[in-house]
Amino acid sequence: MDIYFDNGATTRVFPEVKDIMVKVLEEEYGNPSSMHRKGLIAEHHLKKTREILASSMKVDPKEITFTSGGTESNNLTIIGTALANQRRGKHIITSTIEHASVYNPFFFLEEMGFEVTFIPVDEKGIIRLDLLKEAIRKDTVLVSVMAVNNEIGSVMPMEEIGAIIKEANPDTYYHADCVQAYGKMKIFPRKWKMDMVSISGHKIHGPKGSGALYVRKGVKIKPILYGGNQEQALRSGTENVPAIAGLGVAAEKIYENHEEKVAYLREIKDYFLEKVMKLPDVTNHSGDAPHIASVSFLKVRSEVLLHALEEKGICVSAGSACSSNKPAVSGTLKGIGLKKEEYESTLRFTFSCYNTKDEVDYVIEELEKLLVVLRRFVRK
Amino acid sequence: MDIYFDNGATTRVFPEVKDIMVKVLEEEYGNPSSMHRKGLIAEHHLKKTREILASSMKVDPKEITFTSGGTESNNLTIIGTALANQRRGKHIITSTIEHASVYNPFFFLEEMGFEVTFIPVDEKGIIRLDLLKEAIRKDTVLVSVMAVNNEIGSVMPMEEIGAIIKEANPDTYYHADCVQAYGKMKIFPRKWKMDMVSISGHKIHGPKGSGALYVRKGVKIKPILYGGNQEQALRSGTENVPAIAGLGVAAEKIYENHEEKVAYLREIKDYFLEKVMKLPDVTNHSGDAPHIASVSFLKVRSEVLLHALEEKGICVSAGSACSSNKPAVSGTLKGIGLKKEEYESTLRFTFSCYNTKDEVDYVIEELEKLLVVLRRFVRK
Repeated sequence: MDIYFDNGATTRVFPEVKDIMVKVLEEEYGNPSSMHRKGLIAEHHLKKTREILASSMKVDPKEITFTSGGTESNNLTIIGTALANQRRGKHIITSTIEHASVYNPFFFLEEMGFEVTFIPVDEKGIIRLDLLKEAIRKDTVLVSVMAVNNEIGSVMPMEEIGAIIKEANPDTYYHADCVQAYGKMKIFPRKWKMDMVSISGHKIHGPKGSGALYVRKGVKIKPILYGGNQEQALRSGTENVPAIAGLGVAAEKIYENHEEKVAYLREIKDYFLEKVMKLPDVTNHSGDAPHIASVSFLKVRSEVLLHALEEKGICVSAGSACSSNKPAVSGTLKGIGLKKEEYESTLRFTFSCYNTKDEVDYVIEELEKLLVVLRRFVRK
Repeated sequence: MDIYFDNGATTRVFPEVKDIMVKVLEEEYGNPSSMHRKGLIAEHHLKKTREILASSMKVDPKEITFTSGGTESNNLTIIGTALANQRRGKHIITSTIEHASVYNPFFFLEEMGFEVTFIPVDEKGIIRLDLLKEAIRKDTVLVSVMAVNNEIGSVMPMEEIGAIIKEANPDTYYHADCVQAYGKMKIFPRKWKMDMVSISGHKIHGPKGSGALYVRKGVKIKPILYGGNQEQALRSGTENVPAIAGLGVAAEKIYENHEEKVAYLREIKDYFLEKVMKLPDVTNHSGDAPHIASVSFLKVRSEVLLHALEEKGICVSAGSACSSNKPAVSGTLKGIGLKKEEYESTLRFTFSCYNTKDEVDYVIEELEKLLVVLRRFVRK
């Protein structure tokens, strides 16, 4: 048995993604900056993916910039807009449950003299809109909020947030980290008044090393990589053409029959939650995202259970897998007010279209057996 | 006929590179930060490539950091060491013929208050060692020099440069941009006293989107991407595992029977130069790198000849292909003192192990015919 319930960390590429990557690697390997035919063919892949991403969000292809992934998209947009607009103000806002690739750029900017306000979340992991509204000032240049939290799957009211920001200060930029949201829901930057949107390829069955940033036309943003002025000078460096081509195919496929795909994910997740909640001493913190379940197995440490499941061929995550083996306690789980015994025993199960109810049945069976064994060793 | 003489811009991946990438994409797609088996398997690819790169340069695997490519490696090391060491001094040095991914970070640092000295080159495109020696001061924190120039293939005396820098100021960091050199010659950072070395995957038949940076243990360097603290916190973001695995295979293969491979490249290049110099009104500016030939075809504009060759199925480059279709005149060609009529008619031919003498014969034949036709249209 080989069961992968860690699709929030990364996903297997779609076969069609692999196919286009192989084609580009083997045959269409030109440098998009080259003036000859091989360069043009390579550039065509960039154009095509730009159009696919733009069309999936109803924006202009010119507003899409390719990056090496979600972390770079978040860094580029947060550091880039803050530095480019600091004459207008040096106050920036984010939430207390963001991904490290958002909060660490905020800490960097704090070092650089910016003032940061962290907005807390409620017990469901939703950003406190009343506090956000109060926090926005005349000198607030940026608000950055994730659309879907990566640890518990809480879904933020992105349209409402956009309305609140722009009403409080029309000049404040609104950045949405949509790394966990893109492909799981539709994102409408224009309607929702977002100025920048971050996307990652490897969360949607696209390749690692691929990402994109939507930047609304007119937004002032400073690059973080300087060089050959690719991507309209916003992101220098030879474009990763095979990965970008793969990202396009993944995005196209994930939004094909989208409602069905989301319904399937939700079915798997709901089926899992229904079954897992019948096990003893289990608490559920899952938000509304269709692919993320967050559950505490009281009286068992999450790493212990994680490795016990691993031995049964089941891959899950303890916290967020993106934080480089850091044993630090999750900000999100604390942020929603979990007690120590809960956040120390939390596992994250994240689903994809490749998962099945049979897999859920097997995981529940193994969980049931393991919990009995592992809890025996806990001191009363 | 489909002849690719633009290997300085980018290369076709080795079949073995494609194979390992497909394997990782399809089967070993875990996130290296994940704690389960799939994460460990992914991490193993990072470890292996780190060892291959380290062994190729006789350094410690811990001194290798993965990036998204040469541009990021150059930006990270130049901006990162300058900012991390500015208390020691704000003077930095580079040459006048660097790649845009070096000189543009230098311009960025100039904006940030650093003082930059640009050292000119001689008529062969070799950095003026006497002027370099004079330029190094007590407050010089960084000297960045490319090992092989990308436009004409001049090879810098990297060991001598290291000796000069460290004698003038042992605290000055020495960065070598080895993007065009790695795989074409052996690089010995320790012996040559280099503190940082930039490498790119797609110039050595590895994948686009892969790169590495050697950073000597003890060098103080500030990241430019913040997040999950991957790569010992020097480069956050989920590692591009398929590309990194491919980079390892490419590096291993390119240094296998290395002397033979270099001798073959040199044979092709010399054969080409011998033939091309027999054509009328041709001047040669090629440096000693085994894979780069730079030739002016007087009385024909380079873009015109480039597109005429393209119609015959021959891909070459006008300036450096990395500079995003910029029509700006090359710094290198001016730097070595070429006259306008020369630098406006220069083409770059860059070879790989996939090229043959038969291809050279065909290119020379077509050049001969095209030059007659194209020169007819030139006003006397």
